[in-house]
Amino acid sequence: MTDLLLRNVRPMGGPASDVLVRGGCIAPPGTDATGAAVEDGHGMLLLPGFVEGHTHLDKTVFHEPDWLVNEVGPRIIDKIDTEREWRARTRHDAGAASLAMARAFLAQGTTRIRSHVDVDTSGGTKHVEHVLATREAMRGLQDIQVVAFPQSGILGRQGTESLLDAALAMGADIVGGLDPCAIERDPVRHLNIVFGLAEKHHKPVDVHLHEQGSMGAFSLELILERTRALSMQGQVVVSHAFCLGDVTERERDVLLAQMAELGVAIATTAPASRPVPLVAPCRAAGVTIFGGNDGIRDTWTPYGSPDMLERAMLIGLRNNFRRDDEIALAFDCVSAAGAKGCGFADYGLHPGARADLVLVEARSLAEAVVVRPPRRMVVSGGRIVARDGVLLA
Amino acid sequence: MTDLLLRNVRPMGGPASDVLVRGGCIAPPGTDATGAAVEDGHGMLLLPGFVEGHTHLDKTVFHEPDWLVNEVGPRIIDKIDTEREWRARTRHDAGAASLAMARAFLAQGTTRIRSHVDVDTSGGTKHVEHVLATREAMRGLQDIQVVAFPQSGILGRQGTESLLDAALAMGADIVGGLDPCAIERDPVRHLNIVFGLAEKHHKPVDVHLHEQGSMGAFSLELILERTRALSMQGQVVVSHAFCLGDVTERERDVLLAQMAELGVAIATTAPASRPVPLVAPCRAAGVTIFGGNDGIRDTWTPYGSPDMLERAMLIGLRNNFRRDDEIALAFDCVSAAGAKGCGFADYGLHPGARADLVLVEARSLAEAVVVRPPRRMVVSGGRIVARDGVLLA
Repeated sequence: MTDLLLRNVRPMGGPASDVLVRGGCIAPPGTDATGAAVEDGHGMLLLPGFVEGHTHLDKTVFHEPDWLVNEVGPRIIDKIDTEREWRARTRHDAGAASLAMARAFLAQGTTRIRSHVDVDTSGGTKHVEHVLATREAMRGLQDIQVVAFPQSGILGRQGTESLLDAALAMGADIVGGLDPCAIERDPVRHLNIVFGLAEKHHKPVDVHLHEQGSMGAFSLELILERTRALSMQGQVVVSHAFCLGDVTERERDVLLAQMAELGVAIATTAPASRPVPLVAPCRAAGVTIFGGNDGIRDTWTPYGSPDMLERAMLIGLRNNFRRDDEIALAFDCVSAAGAKGCGFADYGLHPGARADLVLVEARSLAEAVVVRPPRRMVVSGGRIVARDGVLLA
Repeated sequence: MTDLLLRNVRPMGGPASDVLVRGGCIAPPGTDATGAAVEDGHGMLLLPGFVEGHTHLDKTVFHEPDWLVNEVGPRIIDKIDTEREWRARTRHDAGAASLAMARAFLAQGTTRIRSHVDVDTSGGTKHVEHVLATREAMRGLQDIQVVAFPQSGILGRQGTESLLDAALAMGADIVGGLDPCAIERDPVRHLNIVFGLAEKHHKPVDVHLHEQGSMGAFSLELILERTRALSMQGQVVVSHAFCLGDVTERERDVLLAQMAELGVAIATTAPASRPVPLVAPCRAAGVTIFGGNDGIRDTWTPYGSPDMLERAMLIGLRNNFRRDDEIALAFDCVSAAGAKGCGFADYGLHPGARADLVLVEARSLAEAVVVRPPRRMVVSGGRIVARDGVLLA
């Protein structure tokens, strides 16, 4: 692999410097750059490749020629049922969909993705198989984690547990779970299955927890108890965790203290329309909180974008982050905190980190977040993979 | 003025048709198009020019070469004081700022703007003079309403009332007001001055009401009492009206019923981080609710964009509008409802309406909102004024 010297770039908006990439990694300052290909950064901002910490690559219609008219009902169960029926009816191709979406993410600077992928008795494990194929296709360009996700629940549809087991055996990286009370109606049985599969396959857990208030807090406590009992410190993510946005601050802080102790992280999409865990109190408590789009243009929602700077902006808006130092926290949610929460290694701009890099024209990190300028260059593992938002061959 | 025939366009995402513009207005179907300049719309979506219902053209640093680092404190009064001192120190030029911002709005398809403009004992009426000059510069291309806005309050800074009076005499269109309890500390005196100026100058009122809960509801009641007493039906806007997002639904509906009866409209920025009046209950009650950015890249906030499709998206996200028919309501907030709430005449796509038009590549209205595609063409008063986001000479 050719070395790459980026001249006159401003890491994280700091002073201009040269950055050398050697063997796919960032070289220590002072390393001899002889023979390296040289790119003039023109004083652009240099950022680490972005991290999408919670999406659903398998569901999107992003790449499809027809607009999907959304007429879905207001409840979560409406969306679950509508989607499963739509998938069966249209034979939506999760392989083509996930590959198109992953490539769109890469073109916009995202080099690591955690994707939940539906496992249910209607589609079986085929969506997982398709996204595993996308993971292989993107290997060396983009890291994709696959969560075997029981979107339609485990308990109400016999055979789902075996399908999850099979999905994990074939290579899914993480065991998913879903609203143990509100959807599954039997939190102990649901979570025992989820954590049982994690123990069996030695894999981490990521539970969708939309439940609000005291019900959500109760489910969260059950998750924390099992994390402790199985010594799964640092191996559990709670996605959404809306309950942390609407219990009292005292109740929230008790939960956050336990999450910090157990290394349980939070994935947030920072939705504008409901209570959410706020970034500042989570960080103050020592809890890793990171960002994701959730679904992008699917039967659930037409919103979302493969641009993690836009997600950082939405996180900033949801948290009322106006100061430059606060907006840096929003960016952290789609970069270093995402890597930490998902367990992506060798992340960052320090010497030895994998050279996943993004160049944008911006005067400051805050401007990059609020303006979301075109990606002039994306580097993955030391190779230039996109220019001006377009993937190279 | 040359007539303009737009061939093969889809008004509001409906079936393809041809639209003829004659004498600056949309001609009735079947009008003879002989002699008209012809533009091929290639099946693009045709939308009415957008309406920015609440912004602050005078405050922005959008056009400035240096990034403004935001280090402001958390309270509204911190932002008010910081801004006034910054303006005095930097001699920020509200003329150049407002003109650059207005032009950026036009390039993105916005042909009507309501701008609040600061009047205070530090800057006097100079910001109003500057934005009135911008209004003149843009005449025939873009309608700009100027609100004489006491951003630093009236009661605590002697002389502000006379300055507002002078600003209205020199051509400001609307009397502004600000948090009668929380900032002004004497709601009756404040509102009597605001409505007194409105009565004297025969001009409408637009009050910034950030106050939440029962305090905000009380101030709103005082506004409604004065609207009724002065027979100012249809002449009053309450901006923000956060209180309508956190009183009980019963209390809210009592207030909305009175607002509907008095034709008092609501301007919302739909911020993600606080309670807001939701679009659906306002519309159900018969209250006009419309959208705006508030400030764009100023000392208050680095966020915002002269793209009203982005604001429509943020309104959609804040209101959890996912269905196509719901997203049409978000678009209405930056189009017809904005025109109605602000009193911009001859608005729309019907025959006889002023031909303010936007062409975008989108399969549906919902897609235009969630994707915010480039503006391929902007027409103002029947003339093509921008292509691909760039103003023509």
